[in-house]
Order: sequence, then C-alpha cells, then structure tokens
Amino acid sequence: MEKSYVSVFLLLVAISCALAAKDAGKKETKETKETTVKPKLPQTLSRGWGDQLIWTQTYEEALFRAKHSNKPLMIIHHLDDCPHSQALKKAFAESKDIQKLAEQFVLLNLVYETTDKNLSPDGQYVPRILFIDPSLTVRADITGRYSNRLYAYEPSDISLLYSNMQKAQKLLKTEL
Amino acid sequence: MEKSYVSVFLLLVAISCALAAKDAGKKETKETKETTVKPKLPQTLSRGWGDQLIWTQTYEEALFRAKHSNKPLMIIHHLDDCPHSQALKKAFAESKDIQKLAEQFVLLNLVYETTDKNLSPDGQYVPRILFIDPSLTVRADITGRYSNRLYAYEPSDISLLYSNMQKAQKLLKTEL
Repeated sequence: MEKSYVSVFLLLVAISCALAAKDAGKKETKETKETTVKPKLPQTLSRGWGDQLIWTQTYEEALFRAKHSNKPLMIIHHLDDCPHSQALKKAFAESKDIQKLAEQFVLLNLVYETTDKNLSPDGQYVPRILFIDPSLTVRADITGRYSNRLYAYEPSDISLLYSNMQKAQKLLKTEL
Repeated sequence: MEKSYVSVFLLLVAISCALAAKDAGKKETKETKETTVKPKLPQTLSRGWGDQLIWTQTYEEALFRAKHSNKPLMIIHHLDDCPHSQALKKAFAESKDIQKLAEQFVLLNLVYETTDKNLSPDGQYVPRILFIDPSLTVRADITGRYSNRLYAYEPSDISLLYSNMQKAQKLLKTEL
C-alpha cells in the first residue's frame, strides 16, 4: 500500500520533470540571448551542488579520472527547471557530511544526458544519481528507496544517499 | 548484483602535446588532492577562453544548442599543459573582435576528447578548432594554414581564425 503511494507520487514527479525538461530547452535558448547582452559571472561546473568541490566537465573526463585516481565516480543528472532536482541540490549542498564525503569521489553533474545507456538502467529521469566503480562498472546495485525509479532521491533521502556513497567507496575488487 | 560495464574509453591526445598530456594527468591528480585541502574559487566552464561568453559543458549539450538555436558550434580542444594551447588561449581571450564574434556561436572547450571520430578528421592534437553547422555537419572545409594539422591555429593566426568564424556563420543550407 505504502509502496503504491510512493509509485503514484513518483510518477507525478517524473511527469512534472519531464515537462520541465522540454521547457528547459526553450527557456535556456532565451536566457542565452539575454545573457549575451548582459554579461554575468562565469558559469561554474558545480552549478550549486558544492562550489568548493572538484567537478569534472564531461563524462569522458570523469571516467578517465575515476580509473586513474582509483576513486568512485558519482554522476548526478538534474535539470534547472525541475523543482525536485533543485530541492535535492539544496539538501546536497547544505549537508556538511555529504559535502565532506563527496571529496572522496570523482564528481560530475549533468543537465544533458550522455549517449551511454549504462547510465540509464531504468530510464532517463531526474534527479538521478549513479555510482561508477574505478573499474568502470556501473554500480546498478546502489539504489534509492523508490522501486520504480531506482536511482532517484528526495531531499528527505539524504542520509540514504550518504550511506550509498559509503557503499560506493567499497570498491569492487574484481571485474568479470 | 547486476553489473554493466562502461565500454567507453579514451585515447588521449597524440602528437605535439602528447607529453604534456601525460604530465597533465599526474599533475592534475596532485592538484586535486591539494585543492581538496585548500578550497579555491569554483571552476569555470570558460577556463580562461572568455569568461563573459556562454560556454556549454558537454558535447551533447553543445549539439543540442547548436541545432535548436540555429547557431554554429565552435569546439576548441586544448590542454592546460600545452604551451601552444595556452598561447592560443591568450590571443583568443585578448582579441576583442574574436570575443565579440564568439557570442554568435555555441561554444565548447574540451580538455578530454569525445568518442566522436568526426571531431578528429586528421587526428587528435591540440590546439584544434572545429566548427559544426546547426545541421550537425562538421565543417571539415574550414581549416587553418597547416597542411599537416588542418585544424590547428597559432596565436599569429588569430585573424585567419576570425575569418574562419565568419565562414562558419554562413550556414549550410542543405544537408545531403
């Protein structure tokens, strides 16, 4: 019973953020034009997920760094116009524990999906957090609490996210 | 446990800045550790190629924006430890004409190569500048002055780069 409520709730989430995604494209085009006229501060790689953390720019860079630094990679898919993404970002940025632990990861936040289907084991929704082992194995076993969106997190799930980050730090020893 | 393997892997830049690239890997790892201890300013997407310009983060984003804004895409491949890249960056950032004209482009600067072979028609070297039409056609016809590195530019080629940017603005009307 509880589960089905969550499912319905998350279905709504998905719908609202999917719409947001489409709008985002349009709005961003507008913003780009406006910003060209009025210069503002340089854009950051952190996008508000933790300005003091080291963020990689691209998926290729993130894979390279994970492999060569032997650190797990955390990939956050989000959208500027998705209220759920924004709420999770706030919780993520404000949690000192999360920010501290995040230093031990190679970090990437993405607004645009990559072409790698391994990054969407159960679909392309936001917010969605995936971990990748330095052996370049997607840790599909590290999931949140929603059965229909395995890699989604709400702000109230921040302690689950923390323990999942700890789980991701226990590196896979073998690659088959 | 479900495992999926990320098959993407990278070839780092070859040729003139190859050694610089290898050194960069080591140095970057060191820097990452140091920066974790001493927080510094957030990293920017411009990386010094023009802080007041709008830079896209990833190739996927850049393609999306080029297509939807009907602006040509300019992709600059470079390396932090490559003196030729640094010299070109300085000339690029200091040229008011270039910076002004660059506003009319979707912009992407990359330190790590993508997996798209269309972006390396004659090899993966840096610095290397390619233009892509909003029809998503790589403008392999827009070249610099070096026959063995068609997409390389030196600081002294800045006016050629400017006229190539103008050429890229004349969009391809048809795509076969």
